[in-house]
Amino acid sequence: MRTHELVLHWIEKQLSDGQLLLGGRLPAERALAEQLQVSRTSVREAIRILEAMGVVRAGVGSGKDAGTVVIAEPASALGSALRLHVATQHLPVADIVETRALLESWAVARAKPDTPALAEAARLLEEMDAHAAVDDFLGLDVRFHVALAEAAGNAVVSTMMGSLREAIEGYAAALTANLPDWETTAARLRAEHRAILQAVNDGDGERAAELVAAHIHGFYREAGLGQAPD
Amino acid sequence: MRTHELVLHWIEKQLSDGQLLLGGRLPAERALAEQLQVSRTSVREAIRILEAMGVVRAGVGSGKDAGTVVIAEPASALGSALRLHVATQHLPVADIVETRALLESWAVARAKPDTPALAEAARLLEEMDAHAAVDDFLGLDVRFHVALAEAAGNAVVSTMMGSLREAIEGYAAALTANLPDWETTAARLRAEHRAILQAVNDGDGERAAELVAAHIHGFYREAGLGQAPD
Repeated sequence: MRTHELVLHWIEKQLSDGQLLLGGRLPAERALAEQLQVSRTSVREAIRILEAMGVVRAGVGSGKDAGTVVIAEPASALGSALRLHVATQHLPVADIVETRALLESWAVARAKPDTPALAEAARLLEEMDAHAAVDDFLGLDVRFHVALAEAAGNAVVSTMMGSLREAIEGYAAALTANLPDWETTAARLRAEHRAILQAVNDGDGERAAELVAAHIHGFYREAGLGQAPD
Repeated sequence: MRTHELVLHWIEKQLSDGQLLLGGRLPAERALAEQLQVSRTSVREAIRILEAMGVVRAGVGSGKDAGTVVIAEPASALGSALRLHVATQHLPVADIVETRALLESWAVARAKPDTPALAEAARLLEEMDAHAAVDDFLGLDVRFHVALAEAAGNAVVSTMMGSLREAIEGYAAALTANLPDWETTAARLRAEHRAILQAVNDGDGERAAELVAAHIHGFYREAGLGQAPD
């Protein structure tokens, strides 16, 4: 095992033993290096990897804000990893889109009416009505879909759904900005969002699942991305 | 942007522009540091992150095997990241199991009969008949499920399914090894595998999906892991 892997292994064990909790701080770099008898370079490499995995945020401040804190932000970290594998063309964009549709269909079919996540989704739709600029709209759009996914109560599905979206966000945003008639697209997306939320609130999971799958495929199709082969 | 992130950004751009391909090599650490005007430490940190994401394998040899090669091994990399988030208790084991059942049900329902992946799955079942030791059996079991998932032809679903399994493999293996009567469990798993493959080969996707979901939930339930709340 290489020395930075020793450090990773030690930190993982601290986490799974409950010695190190969410919000807790890692020992300082120098102390950790001494304790594990490795170089500070190896400690820093391990911390960079944990940052990239969304497991810690490395300290930048001093005083009570100093130090490296344990966090839980897997979606964006996994999204970056997936994006790199899309870049190498190992993971096709069409497969990303299809998987996203699968996870979100499942989530809306399971979403429970009258949950705080659905109230948040409804609030975001109001906000989207007031925002026409592509960037603002798409930012709210992400949060709407995450809120929908969260209403199903499975943290892994929400995380993966968020990471898939993040993996191809750059492509989608660039293409959306070039659409000939964004106003028309935005009006259609707003109407589709309302219909999905309505089906969930009506307890009609099957219809919600169909609508969200059509909505996702339609969005990427219009943007010219992720044509599934069938 | 921190300096190691500059390096990551540059490498990602090389990949998405097609300047750097799967199987290709990164410039040597020193050359990359000079080109991007950063320290060699920053280059090495970026490479460690890419290794952890399954995007490169850092060179250990010399001569023609030297250098850092672009690879595509996302499943085990994502699995390590998920495992860390299971360790912090951000991602519940029950949600991992449920998501795995969801992805595999979808995959077997879409799997096409008479594909090479299904022939490989059948071959692995033969091999499993000849292996009774827990570790050998579970290793083949992983490969059987991966082959099934691959028969659906979605690389993202196969990758995520592999990463979910990897995230909780340590727990499952430890618990499986402690089962009171492994022989009986193994016989049941063998029979279930055959029934799933038979349903796929019969083109009965719906039945295959039901069987694989029951198989996955049953396995983890027996091991004492991942009881879904309902």
